[in-house]
Amino acid sequence: MIMDESSPRNGRTMFACLVGVSQVLGLASVVLTGVWLGQYRGGFAWDASPQEFNLHPLCMVLGLVFLQGDAILVYRVFSNEAKKNVKILHGVIHFFALIISIVGFVAVFDVHRASKIPDMYSLHSWCGMATFILFCVQWVVGLMFFLFPVTSSWLRAAYLPIHVFCGLVLLVMCIGSCLTGITEKLLFTIAPTYSLFASEGVMANVLGILLVGYGVLLVYLVTKEEYRRPPNPEEESLSVHFKTLTEGESPTSP
Amino acid sequence: MIMDESSPRNGRTMFACLVGVSQVLGLASVVLTGVWLGQYRGGFAWDASPQEFNLHPLCMVLGLVFLQGDAILVYRVFSNEAKKNVKILHGVIHFFALIISIVGFVAVFDVHRASKIPDMYSLHSWCGMATFILFCVQWVVGLMFFLFPVTSSWLRAAYLPIHVFCGLVLLVMCIGSCLTGITEKLLFTIAPTYSLFASEGVMANVLGILLVGYGVLLVYLVTKEEYRRPPNPEEESLSVHFKTLTEGESPTSP
Repeated sequence: MIMDESSPRNGRTMFACLVGVSQVLGLASVVLTGVWLGQYRGGFAWDASPQEFNLHPLCMVLGLVFLQGDAILVYRVFSNEAKKNVKILHGVIHFFALIISIVGFVAVFDVHRASKIPDMYSLHSWCGMATFILFCVQWVVGLMFFLFPVTSSWLRAAYLPIHVFCGLVLLVMCIGSCLTGITEKLLFTIAPTYSLFASEGVMANVLGILLVGYGVLLVYLVTKEEYRRPPNPEEESLSVHFKTLTEGESPTSP
Repeated sequence: MIMDESSPRNGRTMFACLVGVSQVLGLASVVLTGVWLGQYRGGFAWDASPQEFNLHPLCMVLGLVFLQGDAILVYRVFSNEAKKNVKILHGVIHFFALIISIVGFVAVFDVHRASKIPDMYSLHSWCGMATFILFCVQWVVGLMFFLFPVTSSWLRAAYLPIHVFCGLVLLVMCIGSCLTGITEKLLFTIAPTYSLFASEGVMANVLGILLVGYGVLLVYLVTKEEYRRPPNPEEESLSVHFKTLTEGESPTSP
């Protein structure tokens, strides 16, 4: 609060630096996942082979961690843009996250079926599936409430904090699921050399730490009071009357 | 906001219910950890045997999840008590969490040394150690800043939101570390039957889900605006002058 008032410019510079670091961490996570599976696990394919399985971690880290995180972050980064545009961007990035994560899910079930590996027995699969179901529910409800508002403005206002909270919980659950997935994959593939600090194990561990760093920074940037979108009564009125606006009428009352 | 004003009594009832559910989830996690390791892993001992290792998960779930979570929750549950007393309770519960988690750490390093198992190679150990180091730093800094304030009131006010944020991050990191630990333990011990839905595996998976539920509920209770401790200027003044108070003087200025 004190820092807010005394140095708004410093606050904005710090914000830009932290966003930059978050992007480096997020992109590094995606690249490292690709390098790990490309270099040590035979790369990628779509033929029910172990190479198809490799698409699972890549899609999850890209879709449900990096894209989901950035979809959340747009409200802070584009705080001076019209809320309607930022909402659309938030929805579009989440759409790509959804498609990519579906590909990742199909890949793992495909490989399990071809190799006769049972589904849904591990803690990783339980956490991952719970997270994905919640992600889909949040997606559909968010779409109905905010992008094509079919509900009353009162209901939207009441749902907003729940949507924000669930979004952050989902991001953290995705990262938790990734950590269990990395642990599982390493113990399934390099158990004898993992404890000897095999380079593949160290690389995958570093990936886990990068994901945790990305998550912590994202949650910090989104929840810090100083970085919140300043309330704009005129914009709120526009937002509430989004439906009216899209029908070409001018909002004259709040 | 709307619900705050229209039904404070309903809000308080809901709060009490959620706290109750959180305690059921937290206690169930501790009990289930004990039952899992007692029934399927030969119980507990302090003789560098695998039974000593079993103290590691039990101490971590009890100390760094349940007690740490409840130490955070006291500020919301005892919102009508004097802040000084709640602070002391927060510190005392964290003290027990620290002692219990040290026992848990000693147990695992003890067993590793006796069985010549390398230390610190897994993602679980990296996450767990990072979390424990941050926990210790947070403990010492929190003690200096708030329980025995040796810093200026301005510095304390600036540090408070960081302390709160780091506390919640720590709790979530502890739960994430538990999930990787459960995955590791199951793959080390019941790999051949885990995919056949062995009862031990299902029990440990349920433990993981309970821990996630406890974490989500705790973070919700602590971050929800409605459940925050109402600001009390007189109390803030008391808090700032805690040092003065303990020396027997009466705070007359803010």
